[in-house]
Amino acid sequence: MIIVMRPEATKEDIDFVVKKLTDYGFKTHLSMGVERTIIGAIGDERALRDKPLSSLPGVEKVVPILKPYKLVSKDFKKEPTVINIKGVKIGGKHIAVMAGPCSVESRELLFEVADSIYKAGARILRGGAFKPRTSPYSFQGLGEEGLKYLREVADHYGMLVITELMDPRDLDLVAKYADILQIGARNMSNFRLLKEVGKAKVPVMLKRGMCATIKEFLMAAEYIASEGNYDIILCERGIRSFDTETRNTLDLAAVPVIKNASHLPIIVDPSHGTGRRDCILPMAQAAIAAGADGLMVEVHPRPSEALSDGDQSILPENFDVLMRRVRVIAATLEKHLEE
Amino acid sequence: MIIVMRPEATKEDIDFVVKKLTDYGFKTHLSMGVERTIIGAIGDERALRDKPLSSLPGVEKVVPILKPYKLVSKDFKKEPTVINIKGVKIGGKHIAVMAGPCSVESRELLFEVADSIYKAGARILRGGAFKPRTSPYSFQGLGEEGLKYLREVADHYGMLVITELMDPRDLDLVAKYADILQIGARNMSNFRLLKEVGKAKVPVMLKRGMCATIKEFLMAAEYIASEGNYDIILCERGIRSFDTETRNTLDLAAVPVIKNASHLPIIVDPSHGTGRRDCILPMAQAAIAAGADGLMVEVHPRPSEALSDGDQSILPENFDVLMRRVRVIAATLEKHLEE
Amino acid sequence: MIIVMRPEATKEDIDFVVKKLTDYGFKTHLSMGVERTIIGAIGDERALRDKPLSSLPGVEKVVPILKPYKLVSKDFKKEPTVINIKGVKIGGKHIAVMAGPCSVESRELLFEVADSIYKAGARILRGGAFKPRTSPYSFQGLGEEGLKYLREVADHYGMLVITELMDPRDLDLVAKYADILQIGARNMSNFRLLKEVGKAKVPVMLKRGMCATIKEFLMAAEYIASEGNYDIILCERGIRSFDTETRNTLDLAAVPVIKNASHLPIIVDPSHGTGRRDCILPMAQAAIAAGADGLMVEVHPRPSEALSDGDQSILPENFDVLMRRVRVIAATLEKHLEE
Amino acid sequence: MIIVMRPEATKEDIDFVVKKLTDYGFKTHLSMGVERTIIGAIGDERALRDKPLSSLPGVEKVVPILKPYKLVSKDFKKEPTVINIKGVKIGGKHIAVMAGPCSVESRELLFEVADSIYKAGARILRGGAFKPRTSPYSFQGLGEEGLKYLREVADHYGMLVITELMDPRDLDLVAKYADILQIGARNMSNFRLLKEVGKAKVPVMLKRGMCATIKEFLMAAEYIASEGNYDIILCERGIRSFDTETRNTLDLAAVPVIKNASHLPIIVDPSHGTGRRDCILPMAQAAIAAGADGLMVEVHPRPSEALSDGDQSILPENFDVLMRRVRVIAATLEKHLEE
Repeated sequence: MIIVMRPEATKEDIDFVVKKLTDYGFKTHLSMGVERTIIGAIGDERALRDKPLSSLPGVEKVVPILKPYKLVSKDFKKEPTVINIKGVKIGGKHIAVMAGPCSVESRELLFEVADSIYKAGARILRGGAFKPRTSPYSFQGLGEEGLKYLREVADHYGMLVITELMDPRDLDLVAKYADILQIGARNMSNFRLLKEVGKAKVPVMLKRGMCATIKEFLMAAEYIASEGNYDIILCERGIRSFDTETRNTLDLAAVPVIKNASHLPIIVDPSHGTGRRDCILPMAQAAIAAGADGLMVEVHPRPSEALSDGDQSILPENFDVLMRRVRVIAATLEKHLEE
Repeated sequence: MIIVMRPEATKEDIDFVVKKLTDYGFKTHLSMGVERTIIGAIGDERALRDKPLSSLPGVEKVVPILKPYKLVSKDFKKEPTVINIKGVKIGGKHIAVMAGPCSVESRELLFEVADSIYKAGARILRGGAFKPRTSPYSFQGLGEEGLKYLREVADHYGMLVITELMDPRDLDLVAKYADILQIGARNMSNFRLLKEVGKAKVPVMLKRGMCATIKEFLMAAEYIASEGNYDIILCERGIRSFDTETRNTLDLAAVPVIKNASHLPIIVDPSHGTGRRDCILPMAQAAIAAGADGLMVEVHPRPSEALSDGDQSILPENFDVLMRRVRVIAATLEKHLEE
Repeated sequence: MIIVMRPEATKEDIDFVVKKLTDYGFKTHLSMGVERTIIGAIGDERALRDKPLSSLPGVEKVVPILKPYKLVSKDFKKEPTVINIKGVKIGGKHIAVMAGPCSVESRELLFEVADSIYKAGARILRGGAFKPRTSPYSFQGLGEEGLKYLREVADHYGMLVITELMDPRDLDLVAKYADILQIGARNMSNFRLLKEVGKAKVPVMLKRGMCATIKEFLMAAEYIASEGNYDIILCERGIRSFDTETRNTLDLAAVPVIKNASHLPIIVDPSHGTGRRDCILPMAQAAIAAGADGLMVEVHPRPSEALSDGDQSILPENFDVLMRRVRVIAATLEKHLEE
Repeated sequence: MIIVMRPEATKEDIDFVVKKLTDYGFKTHLSMGVERTIIGAIGDERALRDKPLSSLPGVEKVVPILKPYKLVSKDFKKEPTVINIKGVKIGGKHIAVMAGPCSVESRELLFEVADSIYKAGARILRGGAFKPRTSPYSFQGLGEEGLKYLREVADHYGMLVITELMDPRDLDLVAKYADILQIGARNMSNFRLLKEVGKAKVPVMLKRGMCATIKEFLMAAEYIASEGNYDIILCERGIRSFDTETRNTLDLAAVPVIKNASHLPIIVDPSHGTGRRDCILPMAQAAIAAGADGLMVEVHPRPSEALSDGDQSILPENFDVLMRRVRVIAATLEKHLEE
C-alpha cells in the first residue's frame, strides 16, 4: 500500500504515519518526490484495507497496490478451474449451457422445454422455484413443488438442476433438489447468504450484481471461497447503465478481464443481460467468441403465456440454432460443448 | 396501459391483442394513428404488469401509464406521513437526526459519542452491530453485545436506537433492542427480508440501493407496506455513477422527486452518500435545504482509530456546527429539529 | 404521442390540451381510464417533440410513441445500407476492417504498420493527424503533415484512408486527403460539425458518444442524413459505466439493437472500447459474432514507444490472428471480409 | 508516478523500466514488497502521463500520484478566485445569479423576463441565441438577432449578458455582444473551442459534460487556463446516471469536491440539472447550502409556450421566492448575493 502525503504535511505527520504502519506490523519505505512524500507499506496489504489511514493527519490519499481478493485470484492458482458436477464439466476447454424456462410454471411445461433443450444439446436445466420479483403483487414461484418438478424432469433426461436460492432459511430445502445453487444478482452482496453457501459445499453459480464492479464481484466469490467452497461459477448478466434500450448492459469485456484476474469459470446470461429476444442469439454467439465458459438461456415454447420474463425467452427452435452456432464458434477457439 | 403495434401488424394481430386483454378482464380502446395503431387497456394496470404482452405477434412496445406502487404513493394518501416513535416525530414539519459511530466498537466509545451528539441535539442513536462488509476478512460487528450497548446507552440519554438488520433469522433479536430497523442499501432488493420487516410491524428505515431507480426504491417500500407496516422512513444514501471522486453520488433531487410521488418521509445520509469527511457538512446542509425530513450522520471522536468507515465520520465538534446550521436552514423552510 | 392527465385534471384542462393539439394540426382521441384520462395525438409526432406539453395544466406526462429519427430508421428504408467506397464495401454481407496506429507519428512507422495490416487483410488505414487529448500538454498530432503521410501510404497499398475531423474549419483540408471522415466520440453532439459533414457529402464514420443513448446516437446520424449525406457508418466504441477495470464498457448489444432500428452499417472499436490490450482480440471476435459490419483496431509494432494510446494497441502478429479468427466467425454468419 | 511490477517480472524487466524513466529525465526509487516490486518515478509527473508505461514488459499497473491539472488547482493558488465583471463579482463571499429564458424567443419576451428577474435581484441575463438541439428538426435559435436583443435588454437594466458559444467560427460575433461566453455541456471536450476561448481572454462559464468526471471537468478548464485566460466560472449541471426520473442527476457533492481541489468559482444549474420544474426551487436552495458560488436558472412567464425547455423553466413569481430563500441561506454561510 502506498500512502501519499499532502504537500503541506509536516515531518511529524510523516513520522506518525510511519509509526502507525510499524505498529500494524509493516515495514515502511519513504520516497521524497518533487511535490509529495510517499510512504510505501511493506507487508500483507489486505490487513491494512480496513484501517482508516486517510484519516491520519497530513495524508492526501491511500493507494492499494494489490487486489483485495486472494483465493479466487490467478496469483493464488494459475490454471483455470474446471468444475465437474456428475460428469458435466465447466471451465477450461468445456463449455456448458444451462437452459430452461424463467420460472417453473408446471410439470408439463418443464417436460416440454427440457425435451427440446436436451435434444439441442443442453445438459443443465434451469428454472426458478423461488422468484425475486420487483413487485410484491407478482407471481413468486411454486416453491418446493417447483423444486420437485425440476428434479424429476432433470433425472428423466440425465440433466443437472440449477435453481435460485434467495434466503438462508431455504438452503437445506433447495440443496436437497438442486445440483447447483444460483445466487441471483440482487443477492450478490447478501454476505450472510454467501457465507451459508460457502459452508454448504454445494456447487454455486454467483451472478454479478447489477451495479457491482468486477472487483466487488470477485470479492463476493471470495466470501464463498473463504468458507471452503471452491466450486464457484461466475455469471455475467448485465450491469446497469444510462441506456434503456436493453434491460441491462451486457458487459462482455468482463469475460477476458475476469479470465485475466481469476481462475474461476465464467458464463454469460444473454437473456437477463439484454431483456430482448432479438438480442439473445447474437449476444450468446458473442459471449462464446469473447471466451465465456458457458451460457444461461431462457427458453419457452409460448413466451406470450409465460408467468415471468416471457419477453426475454427464446423459442426452442431458436435455441437449436443458437447451439449450432455456439458449437462452431467454440471449435474456432479450440473448445467444445459439453453434451 | 398502452400497447403500440408495429407498422406491419395485421388486423389479426390487433384482434388477438384485443382478445387477450379482454380475457384478462380489461376493456380496450383502439386508436389508428398515421404510422401506428395503439391499443389502450382500461382497468387496473397493475394486473397487467406481469403479462408478457410484448411477446404477442405484431406488438412493438408496451407503455405503462400508472406508477407500479400504490400504498406508498400520493395517489393513495395525500398528506405527508408523520411517524411518531416514542414521541420523536419524523416527517411533515419534523426533522429528525440520527447520529453515532459507523460500528458499535465498545461501550465506552458509544457513551462518548452519544454524550456529544445528544448535547448537540440528536435524538436517535445509530451504530452497526451486524456490519455488511465487502471483504470477508473485515470486522463484521459485535453482534448481540453491540445491540445491548446501543440499548443501554440510548436509554441512558432517552434516545431511540436504529441499527441494521441483515438476515431474516436475526429479526427477533434485533427488534428486541432497536426502535427502528435499518434495511441497508445492499438489502434493498432482498425481498424476503422486506416481507419479514413488513410483518414485524416495527418502524423501518429503508436505504436506497446503490443502483436502484426511484421507482424500484418505492417498490421496495411497497413490499413492506403490502404486509401492513406503514412506518417506513426512506433514506437516500447515494447512487453509483461513473465518477470516483466521491464514494457514491448523492442524488439530492431524489428528495423533491419522492416528496412529489410518495407520502413517506425521506432522510439523507451524507456520510455514505459521499464517503468524504469534507463533504459531509455541506451535503447535510444541502439535504435539509432540498427538503429532506432528516439526516443520518456518522460521528467518531477519533476517526483514524475507527474499526470501519473512519474516513467518512466527522468529529463531535463538527457535528455541533452541522446541527446549528441545520436548525437555521430548517427554520427558513418553516420546519424544526426534533429535540 | 400520448398525453396522460393527472387524476385531478379538470374537464377544462382536458379541453385545453385538446385545443392546443388541434391548433398544432393534430387530431385527438380521448380514452377515459379507471384512474387517468389519456389523450392520443394523431399526426406526425415529430412536430410535437419540441412543444412543452407537460407544462400545460393538468398534464402528468407525455409519452412519445415513435422514434425521434426518421431518415436513418428501418421504417424509412428496410434493406441494410451497403456503402461502397472505391470498391470497398461496408454493410450487408461485407465486413470491413480499419486498422493502423492511434496517431500518425512518422512516415516510416505508417509504412511499417500499413504493410503488416495490408498483408493480414485490412483495406482501410486509420491514423490520427488531429488528436483530441484530455490534456492540453499532450501530443496533439502532426496536422496536415500527418494527412499527407496517410494518403501516400494508403495509395501505395491501394487502401482507403479514415481520419478524424475535429473542427469545421478543417473540413476542406481533411476531406482533401481522407476517404472517410471520422467524427469522434467527443464530437458526437457537436451539431455544427455534424451539419458540415452532412453538407460535405463525403462518407462519414460517426462514433457513439461516451454517454450517448442509442437514440441520441441515431439522432446524431439523422443530423448528417438531414443534410443529404447518407454514407454514414456508425461505430460503437464503449460507453461510460461505473466500472473502471476497462476504460469504457463496450456495449456490444448495441449492434443487434441498432440493426433492428436502422439500416446503417455499424462497426465496433475494441481498442477504445476496452482500453486494454488483453481484451482486444476477444472483443473483436465477439463484435463480429454479435453481427457487427466491421472493426476499427489500433495496431502498433512497438506499443511502449507510441505517442498516444500505446496501451490499447496490439502487435501486428496479434492483428494477424485476429483477422484469421474474424474470417471464420464471419463465415459462420454467412458474411465475408472485404479484402 | 508509481509503477507496480507483476509478480513474475524479471530483474531485466525492472532494469528496463528504470532505464526508460531515467531516459525521460526522472529519478527512480525501488521498493521490493512482499508480493510486488514497486518503482517510484521522481520528477514532474505530468510529463509521464502520455508515456505508454503499462506497455513495458513486466509492468502490472501505473499509478499517478498527482492531479493532472495544474493552473486551476489549489496547489497552484490557495485563495478562491473572485471574478469581477463590470463590478459584478463571482466567487469568495459573492453569490451571483444568472437567469433568463432558455432561448431568446423575441425582444418582447426578453424585456418581460428581464424586468422580473432584475427586480428579484438577478444581475446576469442568460438566453440562448445559438441552441444545441438533439434533433435537427428543432428550433435552433435566432442567431445574431438574439444576441442583439440580449445586449439591448441587459444594457437597459445594467445587467451582464451570458450566452452560449458553440462554434469557433462564431467567437468574434458572440464576444461582441456577450460579457460571459458559455461553453455548453456538449462542448466541454471540444478542445479546439476551449483553446479559442482561452485565447480570447473573455470571461468563460464552462459547463460540466454529461459524463465528465470532476478530473476531466477541471482538465477542460485547464485547457482554457493554459492559453492564458483565468476568468473561468465552472458550472455543475447534472450528470447522466441510470435513473430517468430527473433529466440528469445533479451532482451537488461536486461543489465541495471542486472547492477542495480548485480555486475557481463554481455555480449550479438546477434547471438542466433536473429538467423538472418541481425540483428547481429545492435544488437551488440545496446548491447554495452546499457552498455554490451562484446559480443559473431558466425563467419563463408562460412555460407552455416556450420554444425550448419550457418544462424546466420556472415562473417569475417562483424565481422571486427562490431569490428570497437564497439570500437567507447565503447569509447562514456568511456570503451575500450580488445585487
